[in-house]
Amino acid sequence: MQQISFENIDLGGFWETKQNTNRDVTMPVIYKQFYDSGRVTAFACDWKPGDEKKPHYFWDSDIAKWIEGVSYSLINAPDESLEEVIDIIVDWIYDNQFIDGYFNIYFTVCEPTKRFTNRDAHELYCAGHLIEAAIAYHKATGKSKFLRCMEKYVLHIKDVFMDKYIADFATPGHEEIELALIKLWEYTDKLEYLKLARYFINLRGNNEKDKPVYNHTDFTYEQSHEPVREMKSAIGHAVRAEYLYCAMADLARIDNDEELKNACKALFSDIANKKMYITGGVGSGILGECFTEEYDLPNQFAYSESCAGIALALFAKRMNLLDVNSIYDDVAERVIYNNIFASCSISGREFFYTNPLEINLKERRLTQKYRMENQNFPATERQALFDCSCCPPNFARFIESFGDFLYTQDDDTVYIHHYAKSSAAFNGIKIKQTTDYPLKGKIKIAISGKCENKKIALRIPGWCQKYTVTVDKKAVKPKVTDGFIYIKCEGKKLSIELDLEMKAVLNEANPLIDQNFGRVAVSYGPFIYCLEDIDTDYKISEISLSKTLNETIKYVEFFKANIMEVDAFVTETFEGLYRPLKNTKKPIRLMLVPYYTFANRGEADMAVWLKLAR
Amino acid sequence: MQQISFENIDLGGFWETKQNTNRDVTMPVIYKQFYDSGRVTAFACDWKPGDEKKPHYFWDSDIAKWIEGVSYSLINAPDESLEEVIDIIVDWIYDNQFIDGYFNIYFTVCEPTKRFTNRDAHELYCAGHLIEAAIAYHKATGKSKFLRCMEKYVLHIKDVFMDKYIADFATPGHEEIELALIKLWEYTDKLEYLKLARYFINLRGNNEKDKPVYNHTDFTYEQSHEPVREMKSAIGHAVRAEYLYCAMADLARIDNDEELKNACKALFSDIANKKMYITGGVGSGILGECFTEEYDLPNQFAYSESCAGIALALFAKRMNLLDVNSIYDDVAERVIYNNIFASCSISGREFFYTNPLEINLKERRLTQKYRMENQNFPATERQALFDCSCCPPNFARFIESFGDFLYTQDDDTVYIHHYAKSSAAFNGIKIKQTTDYPLKGKIKIAISGKCENKKIALRIPGWCQKYTVTVDKKAVKPKVTDGFIYIKCEGKKLSIELDLEMKAVLNEANPLIDQNFGRVAVSYGPFIYCLEDIDTDYKISEISLSKTLNETIKYVEFFKANIMEVDAFVTETFEGLYRPLKNTKKPIRLMLVPYYTFANRGEADMAVWLKLAR
Repeated sequence: MQQISFENIDLGGFWETKQNTNRDVTMPVIYKQFYDSGRVTAFACDWKPGDEKKPHYFWDSDIAKWIEGVSYSLINAPDESLEEVIDIIVDWIYDNQFIDGYFNIYFTVCEPTKRFTNRDAHELYCAGHLIEAAIAYHKATGKSKFLRCMEKYVLHIKDVFMDKYIADFATPGHEEIELALIKLWEYTDKLEYLKLARYFINLRGNNEKDKPVYNHTDFTYEQSHEPVREMKSAIGHAVRAEYLYCAMADLARIDNDEELKNACKALFSDIANKKMYITGGVGSGILGECFTEEYDLPNQFAYSESCAGIALALFAKRMNLLDVNSIYDDVAERVIYNNIFASCSISGREFFYTNPLEINLKERRLTQKYRMENQNFPATERQALFDCSCCPPNFARFIESFGDFLYTQDDDTVYIHHYAKSSAAFNGIKIKQTTDYPLKGKIKIAISGKCENKKIALRIPGWCQKYTVTVDKKAVKPKVTDGFIYIKCEGKKLSIELDLEMKAVLNEANPLIDQNFGRVAVSYGPFIYCLEDIDTDYKISEISLSKTLNETIKYVEFFKANIMEVDAFVTETFEGLYRPLKNTKKPIRLMLVPYYTFANRGEADMAVWLKLAR
Repeated sequence: MQQISFENIDLGGFWETKQNTNRDVTMPVIYKQFYDSGRVTAFACDWKPGDEKKPHYFWDSDIAKWIEGVSYSLINAPDESLEEVIDIIVDWIYDNQFIDGYFNIYFTVCEPTKRFTNRDAHELYCAGHLIEAAIAYHKATGKSKFLRCMEKYVLHIKDVFMDKYIADFATPGHEEIELALIKLWEYTDKLEYLKLARYFINLRGNNEKDKPVYNHTDFTYEQSHEPVREMKSAIGHAVRAEYLYCAMADLARIDNDEELKNACKALFSDIANKKMYITGGVGSGILGECFTEEYDLPNQFAYSESCAGIALALFAKRMNLLDVNSIYDDVAERVIYNNIFASCSISGREFFYTNPLEINLKERRLTQKYRMENQNFPATERQALFDCSCCPPNFARFIESFGDFLYTQDDDTVYIHHYAKSSAAFNGIKIKQTTDYPLKGKIKIAISGKCENKKIALRIPGWCQKYTVTVDKKAVKPKVTDGFIYIKCEGKKLSIELDLEMKAVLNEANPLIDQNFGRVAVSYGPFIYCLEDIDTDYKISEISLSKTLNETIKYVEFFKANIMEVDAFVTETFEGLYRPLKNTKKPIRLMLVPYYTFANRGEADMAVWLKLAR
């Protein structure tokens, strides 16, 4: 099974707009913030004790992700001035790389004697992101300086960690290098990179040298509590965990390793079926940015980091190459259109690091004043820059490479995983999707080129309860196998119309999720909706949804999305506190907005999980 | 309006059982705990630095409340050995009282140079409880030594605080002495005690000398933020606040002070209509043991201190003398049969200080592990002794004096506020109540003696939606005025039968209480019921109540109470996390127990506010 890379796909419509905002606003804004905070010039490695803007040990990775995102944009839209900026940074890397290949800003200027001594200091994590950036930049420009630097660094890492085994730790405290090394092997075909990746993966939870990196827990925080093939439960820091699972999925595919494949399936299922918000957000634990326990998904305290959402999508994408089942795409779609989108404002300028599913400003204030001092809740508004700024550039590179998610191909079948207005050409096949998806459910797919006798597999999204398919204008009713329908291309081209009925759906949560006790969430297509109290005269707690939503859908330019009006009721307040149950409810029309667009109009109370009228 | 004291009333049935447990178990248990912790012998005032069991500044009050409770029991059940114990303590007080009248254990042995310098050190609070104890002991035994000591102490306090105004603070940081001084005036008829009480009350929030006692807040914590006649909102530490409000209500009545009366009505209404749990518990703020804000009544974090419940009942009792309205009795009944009863185990041996309305053990564990470190939740099981042990002896004295709540009388009317099997004789009138109340709703009331031409006012409890009345066996339908029906006693005796229909009621909360979002609570008569998960095979979050409860009521000896079985449904868990709303519910019968009996069978998940089936 082969994944079709985004370079082969031109996106239009909804996604083109997203990518334009990403290129025109988000990436420049991130660069400016990074420049102002000293991250860019830090690569000159001339910081000295006493200077301002002391480099942090993850700054390399922040810039690396930005370079990766920009490089992806350069593939489709060359831009010399952007290349110049990156070339300067690459020159700094080249100039400051040690003769043995080592490169890391923090451990060059801040703690030069402490190389590879602190397992939690993100050195190999930074290396991994730099590798990914170097590959992307080489792909975009053909310039090899950055890539050569990184290959030299990798050989040094291999020497220290694998061949001589002399570093103070055996495997990194923050995973990332594993998947980057596999990518580097795939790009260069040099086997030592794959060997090093395999070495790090197999050594994890399987050696005497590693120590726990986090006071609060044991080895689970950085997934070093057991060998990877024994893993069944997603655990510890969510981003670290999922970057590892990505590399495990890659390795399982490359080595055709059944044991590892099964571990990946178990981990994915554990996340998707027990530890994921309805927005696709994961890692509910605010202490430790971590996976907590099954069905523990608090709405107000949701940590649900943007990077963890991105990592989940990356894991899902890799699972498609291991296993044909639409569950991976369903999860990817859920997390992309809700959690990941939420992490950036409509304008493209501000960012969420945490993505709560409920904001109750009064309850926050009262909690901090009367129940627990110094309690940090997730932010209520997106901010320009974080000290810990991993999410914005991760978002940027993700949006640029979304095309990766659309297609895979094996010997006899082309799989269409996601729908988006686009033209693709790969392996002699051309696929054109004409659609307003995700805003509307109708998709015309025109396939031509070397498609004769190939099967076309179309995913029926998990959110869709009713759909029709026509093939060359004739209605067909193919059976659904693991979430896909299969259509044989008999001739030299094929025209498919898929009409996925979009309507408002009331969703319930598994009753084992205490936090959603008696509530429902509204979805429309892949989007989860929420209520912001600025759109109603009432408090959220006074409102309950009607069982028949009777929705009106309206595209609103401000949101660049569909807003929804539904039938609801207001339970009117009464004198006093308690009374025998009455049904004094007043019908109202209620405006809901896609979850990802919340907090674009100032701070407000917000809830995804709403009361249902009795 | 005169309150009829409990000495005039013999309680039988339900309350006799309660009082027997209080006398036979609770008060001896408290004494033993107090003895073992050093509280009893601390009165010898021979502790020296370096010794174990250093006295705390509220120990005087702990023992005082115990003496008060025991004294009340001695009135009905003399006991020489108990008197001997108290006499020894009184001798210690006499021996260690300073020549100027001062008595306080802590400031005699621990900080002898710091008398009346620390507004928060509970000196006058201790004095107040000692005064109440001395009155009770004098009433029970006629022995005057203790009372004389306390009168001497009061004169010293008056000298220091009022006449010379030389203490470091003007009014106490913890109220209590005000109501005690009024009680002392009523008992001795010596006007200076009333003057001192009036002085403390009027000076509060009305002087330049007082400083805030609590870091976290301003003057609101100890109700010194405004003069008492301007108070409209119950605020700050709940017990302190309500003890003040008790004294304010007393003074308003004595002085016929309309302004103060209106302040008391506003404060009571603020509590009853905006700040009270359905159990009658008050003071929802765990940081500061305080009233928080309107409609802020978190269930899991409920502080809802037992002493605050007791203080609310005492405030309600006093309001009956200011204003004829059953709201005061409704609140008293709610808090007594739910919050106050909950504070002591069925056995009488263990005590709750805080009284949560929901326990979710998994959620607690996860919250402490993943959301907020070091967070203290309310206790899940009653404990034998607290360091801060104000609640158990407060409970003991309260149970002994419950008779106080039954009757008041003015020139032409006898008011029956509460129903309980009992015989009363006062002012030449005899009233006999034959009933199983609160377990059943039928009450026979026989009135004789000097009752001719008097009106008998019977309260129709707020919980009761349907009732019948017969007078001398004839059905009548008197109109309800402010919660009371009035029956004229034409002859020399009167026989009334009141049948209050008891059935299970589904209660809803004002939607402004966020925390009860879409939930209902079941009541039966004055009792609020709860679900403990040990009584079901399911998790509480999986269960929803049927709208038609179809209840079965069953008296169970273990609980000494009625348990209830109702129709409910289980929403079965399903694979995965979310799905379009289905109605896959399975009918079950569900056992509920009176809230006050929860946690008598080990630690368990518990909830008062439950889901209602759709």
